[in-house]
Amino acid sequence: MTNFIRTDIDFAYELDAQDELASFRNEFVIDDPNLIYLDGNSLGRLPKRTADFMRCAVEEEWGKRLIRVWNEGWIDTPTELGAKIAKLVGAQADEILVTEATSINLFKLAVAALRARPDRPKIVSDVFNFPSDLYIMQGIIDLLGHRHRLELIPSADTVTIAPSAVAEAIDDDTALVTLSHVVFKSAFMYNMAAVTKQAHQSGALTLWDLSHSAGAVPIDLNGAGADLAVGCTYKYLNGGPGSPAFLYVRKDLQTQLSQPMWGWFAAQNPFAFDLDYTPAADISRYRVGTPPMLSMKAVEPAIDILLEAGMDRLRAKSLRQTEYLIFLADRWLVPLGFTIGTPRQASLRGSHVSIRHPEGYRINRALIEAEPPDVKVIPDFREPDNIRLGIAPLYNTFAEIHRAVDRLRVIVEEEIYQKYSVERLAVT
Amino acid sequence: MTNFIRTDIDFAYELDAQDELASFRNEFVIDDPNLIYLDGNSLGRLPKRTADFMRCAVEEEWGKRLIRVWNEGWIDTPTELGAKIAKLVGAQADEILVTEATSINLFKLAVAALRARPDRPKIVSDVFNFPSDLYIMQGIIDLLGHRHRLELIPSADTVTIAPSAVAEAIDDDTALVTLSHVVFKSAFMYNMAAVTKQAHQSGALTLWDLSHSAGAVPIDLNGAGADLAVGCTYKYLNGGPGSPAFLYVRKDLQTQLSQPMWGWFAAQNPFAFDLDYTPAADISRYRVGTPPMLSMKAVEPAIDILLEAGMDRLRAKSLRQTEYLIFLADRWLVPLGFTIGTPRQASLRGSHVSIRHPEGYRINRALIEAEPPDVKVIPDFREPDNIRLGIAPLYNTFAEIHRAVDRLRVIVEEEIYQKYSVERLAVT
Repeated sequence: MTNFIRTDIDFAYELDAQDELASFRNEFVIDDPNLIYLDGNSLGRLPKRTADFMRCAVEEEWGKRLIRVWNEGWIDTPTELGAKIAKLVGAQADEILVTEATSINLFKLAVAALRARPDRPKIVSDVFNFPSDLYIMQGIIDLLGHRHRLELIPSADTVTIAPSAVAEAIDDDTALVTLSHVVFKSAFMYNMAAVTKQAHQSGALTLWDLSHSAGAVPIDLNGAGADLAVGCTYKYLNGGPGSPAFLYVRKDLQTQLSQPMWGWFAAQNPFAFDLDYTPAADISRYRVGTPPMLSMKAVEPAIDILLEAGMDRLRAKSLRQTEYLIFLADRWLVPLGFTIGTPRQASLRGSHVSIRHPEGYRINRALIEAEPPDVKVIPDFREPDNIRLGIAPLYNTFAEIHRAVDRLRVIVEEEIYQKYSVERLAVT
Repeated sequence: MTNFIRTDIDFAYELDAQDELASFRNEFVIDDPNLIYLDGNSLGRLPKRTADFMRCAVEEEWGKRLIRVWNEGWIDTPTELGAKIAKLVGAQADEILVTEATSINLFKLAVAALRARPDRPKIVSDVFNFPSDLYIMQGIIDLLGHRHRLELIPSADTVTIAPSAVAEAIDDDTALVTLSHVVFKSAFMYNMAAVTKQAHQSGALTLWDLSHSAGAVPIDLNGAGADLAVGCTYKYLNGGPGSPAFLYVRKDLQTQLSQPMWGWFAAQNPFAFDLDYTPAADISRYRVGTPPMLSMKAVEPAIDILLEAGMDRLRAKSLRQTEYLIFLADRWLVPLGFTIGTPRQASLRGSHVSIRHPEGYRINRALIEAEPPDVKVIPDFREPDNIRLGIAPLYNTFAEIHRAVDRLRVIVEEEIYQKYSVERLAVT
């Protein structure tokens, strides 16, 4: 833990001046310097090069090359993007595929895993997992005739899961351990290698959801011996609203397992138009249908930026920024009734900081909507009281963090949040 | 059948001059008037308004509104687009959803249907169905433990399916009848109402694939009593490469059936983040994960154009154009060894014309690649010998049809195709 002492804005400027990644902020469209965007953990900012790239993709490629774009490279985009993401998450180039939504990929890989462990009835997850991940497991259990059960590892508190609780849950009945590497609420991060080892010792497979860790923390899927993983590209990877997710299947498992949606793009030769399905003998077996190419194309320039910055440098900056945020929050926000809902230990923390307050929803609305003279802050909110402040080290500055925490203090001290309704918007 | 007599290009110009939909061609980006695009049945052209719309979606909405876009309307795009497509296919506004790929939607709805008919082991399809549709059924049969079997209605010839063969296949063992309304190879079109009636008389559900009929022919899902349907938006709907597909679930079936991928967007309240899944009580139950919004947004302006033109007028023009094409092909191409692989009877025909020739693949390559002084034609090819000439009445002209058939004649007469390889490209 870095020891911060000064709470003045000049110190934040000094930290920014020392930041070797500072120039990456110029890679993004930032039209309003007084809009402090701390929601890169929900939807990353638009890279400038993506804007240009998409004009070309729409107007030149679709518009003028028409159907020919497929043979001019687009047919390989899902695997080429996968090869780039592989560098971010410690996988081989041919172990990752960009395809569909995270929940769909979870469905495919969880079904594949359960069918590979037919005599084991238990799926282990935890109470911090993203609800969609749990819903997908519940749907699979229903689909497969309630032969499986879902056991959720309890939490130690509102922030963390104890390693002993994980060890206790995994046993010889366990077919699959499926967890978020970094959990969406508290940013608690699992030790992927340790959990994977426990799972393997019991004969279970692991399925990691990297949505809140890809692009946020260094990941070493191969080093951890991970079996299966999925992840999101629209958060820290800046791929655009709802951009296609990715999936990872360890090389030796690719032909051992079988996913249940036998769409034509999963076939060995889609354009042979055979009446009987023959699965591809590589990662393409985990594809299904025609990919949504405009959303897919937008992912490419965004990942290049992350690769240029490098995950180790990004992680170092992210940790320094989340620590700085916690330092300021301890001084300014905790006295106002906030609690820190994120691990203080760096090795257990992803790249956002949750701060919790009974009036969290209205405070969050006020941050986004109140018209102050000089600053707006966009975090997001998770029920029941959790304001998530996402740190995207590619574009967030220390000064932004200082201004955001200061703004939070003002909103609570001056009770600005009182004029907002507790009624929820469609998307919080 | 219209009686055409003249084969001269001036007659084509006369037909274009009489075309009340001619001005819709100006809605599309057409940079090269000598590129004759007859592949709108695979990938529709780019509407000009889509180019502008996408600049705004990327640069203004994602770029500047960031996460706020969801509450500023994007969260409702899948159902709003569904309501527009409903007008094209004879459904209620709340019976259609734009989501995922066609194959994924087929998986969801076929599983839902089979689970609603648990004692019936048979799925009926036909030998003309798109292979991905058959693969999806094969995958489901495998997933559900081989309790079902897939029976394929045989064809009467290379072009059509006889109504008697349909009637023979559907029996009291049949859970599901799943067919392409217009089949991809020959453009043969089923009588949706008649087949649905037969299925219902046997107690089976119907699942129609509208990929080659939506935007190409008038469809009346409600009038036909159809249960379930899926369809593609990147062909005649001009939604862009791999744009998300749509699905239809008849209102009264929406809560009776259950699809197996319980992603958070299928839940009653995704942002409550409950740990247990409660399905939405409407069409949203058939969603799964976060939609790929850039690809999704591109669908909207394209559908507006179709609604402005009107399906009845589009169908009238399409039929006149396919008849004109067949008229010219009979005179110029049949003597060169081509056969017509599409029904001559208008009521049995979708909006493309298949012409078959033993050298079809090389002829197709020559149409696209040979450098003539003044014309290139882009159709597509389907194994083993099938050149598909897609008619998109929104932008194809009679003169284009004349020039394309004339070009085909030249390529075969002058044996231009001989210098092309039979080796297949990745995408044919």
